[in-house]
Amino acid sequence: MVSLIQEANQRIFSHVWRTPLVRSEPLTRLGPGKVWLKLESLQPTNSFKVRPAFNAMLTHLEQARRCGVVTSSSGNFAQATAYAARELGVDAQIVMMRDASPFKIERTRQFGGEVVLCENSFEARWETTFRIQRESGRLLLHPYDSEETIAGDGTIGLELLEDLDRDFCVVVPVSGGGLVAGIASALKPFRPSCRVIGVQPKANPSMAESKRQGSRVTVQPQGSMADALSVLTPGELTFDIARELVDDVVLVEEDEFAAAVRLLAEEQKLVVEPGGAAGVAAWMAGKVDNRGLDVVCIVSGGNVVSAKFTQLLQEANMAVAR
Amino acid sequence: MVSLIQEANQRIFSHVWRTPLVRSEPLTRLGPGKVWLKLESLQPTNSFKVRPAFNAMLTHLEQARRCGVVTSSSGNFAQATAYAARELGVDAQIVMMRDASPFKIERTRQFGGEVVLCENSFEARWETTFRIQRESGRLLLHPYDSEETIAGDGTIGLELLEDLDRDFCVVVPVSGGGLVAGIASALKPFRPSCRVIGVQPKANPSMAESKRQGSRVTVQPQGSMADALSVLTPGELTFDIARELVDDVVLVEEDEFAAAVRLLAEEQKLVVEPGGAAGVAAWMAGKVDNRGLDVVCIVSGGNVVSAKFTQLLQEANMAVAR
Repeated sequence: MVSLIQEANQRIFSHVWRTPLVRSEPLTRLGPGKVWLKLESLQPTNSFKVRPAFNAMLTHLEQARRCGVVTSSSGNFAQATAYAARELGVDAQIVMMRDASPFKIERTRQFGGEVVLCENSFEARWETTFRIQRESGRLLLHPYDSEETIAGDGTIGLELLEDLDRDFCVVVPVSGGGLVAGIASALKPFRPSCRVIGVQPKANPSMAESKRQGSRVTVQPQGSMADALSVLTPGELTFDIARELVDDVVLVEEDEFAAAVRLLAEEQKLVVEPGGAAGVAAWMAGKVDNRGLDVVCIVSGGNVVSAKFTQLLQEANMAVAR
Repeated sequence: MVSLIQEANQRIFSHVWRTPLVRSEPLTRLGPGKVWLKLESLQPTNSFKVRPAFNAMLTHLEQARRCGVVTSSSGNFAQATAYAARELGVDAQIVMMRDASPFKIERTRQFGGEVVLCENSFEARWETTFRIQRESGRLLLHPYDSEETIAGDGTIGLELLEDLDRDFCVVVPVSGGGLVAGIASALKPFRPSCRVIGVQPKANPSMAESKRQGSRVTVQPQGSMADALSVLTPGELTFDIARELVDDVVLVEEDEFAAAVRLLAEEQKLVVEPGGAAGVAAWMAGKVDNRGLDVVCIVSGGNVVSAKFTQLLQEANMAVAR
């Protein structure tokens, strides 16, 4: 996988940003160890998903331009696919559930993607996606479970290796598992003593449960404010990698997501969506065993619905006023 | 001044962050030229002011530790002085007006500074500050008009020279003028074709007016949401430098500040205070003549009162809903 990640890096570097790794004073205070934030929320479309979207599309560019692409997403891969497609002159159809974040649906359309809404279940989403692929001959871009997407995700790991010269513990939001699999695949061959910790909502624990049981299990997701981390079953490829290379997957509660979003806004001056704040939430809740290493929290996305975000901040204001 | 800035850089680099310079997709779309953001809002205390505070205190460290320090600030230099004093084992008194941002007063105290409140005028603020200095023998740290503070501010310019290898146009929020004077002093000797544009609120135009008249004038500030950019008269040193090295000072309206704060939150995922968004506001309003060069907006601070920030976002939400 490492060579695929290095190839991905060459392929996408002129299309995405090399995001900053910044020190966090308020999170370091919770110690031990310095805490760094990798700001994927600053990418075009405001999530890391432009990396896998560009890598998948550029790998099969001729076919993508000829046949168009289709994908399925809770919202961040949707926006990234729409954006990459527009940049590369590709036609994109994106299947989203009717109750996906309206903000993410709207932004996907603004980036030029054709959104196909389906019923509110993962089964319906995949069924619709596969049907479109069969009937239209479009190229299917998997949001997390393909070599191209995992390799695109893994480019974050290469940047961390360049930016930090000592072993560290990286804390990664987990949905289907592409991001954590990609980062672990980039780090472990070069620095086996780096730790990789995945984080899922307690409401959607399929990867944590699969790791515990030693095989992929399906867990019907409950509602969570971390809409980006909603998935039925880990990917096949991503689970195989996570089983071998990810040290632990921890679970965070809804109020821990809210506390992380608030701290990032008030003390770090970053707008981060709940799913993107999962690593910070786990660190704040004392759930990251970093073994004294420096900690890197991947801030994977910032696409919080504005109304939800302001509601969170207002609740914090009221708490201060009391 | 360049050698003072280089010395400042050596002095402060282990105490402050080297902040990231990031590409902005939504601001570049307004073109022509790529737009970059220099994220001083990510510094400890969330503004660039830690640079001048550490440089001034470290330059006179022995005296500062023996006698303590006193300063006067609308809030960002206050927090930075309190933070630097705590880090360096210095006692700090900070004079602030009674109607200064309550958020900034509270944070200054949290960082360990002793806040001395005075009446709501610049005259009272300086009178109180000088009286404390006379009576206590504390070292006076000027928030903008000293070689130490200007040199600390100028370290931002050195980082821009390292990060960008072509000429650029930098757009800088202006209050007393320390930041714009420091950055211009760092850039112009090495790259005379770089452009330096200052930005003030239309409600507080003392530097713009002074530049127009060719000498320092006092303008009684009106109320502005950009509380960080409130000043009576430009500094003596800062005006001398700005007259020679700053290409233009432009003015932005209150609704232009609000639009910039909103865009930075919604599309760039950054929490920025109105004063810190002045450069972005000027760019969005078409007031920056960049002559086709890439544009760097200095995002100088993020210390917006949370309630004000959420109010701005909510107004934006309501506008979307309509």
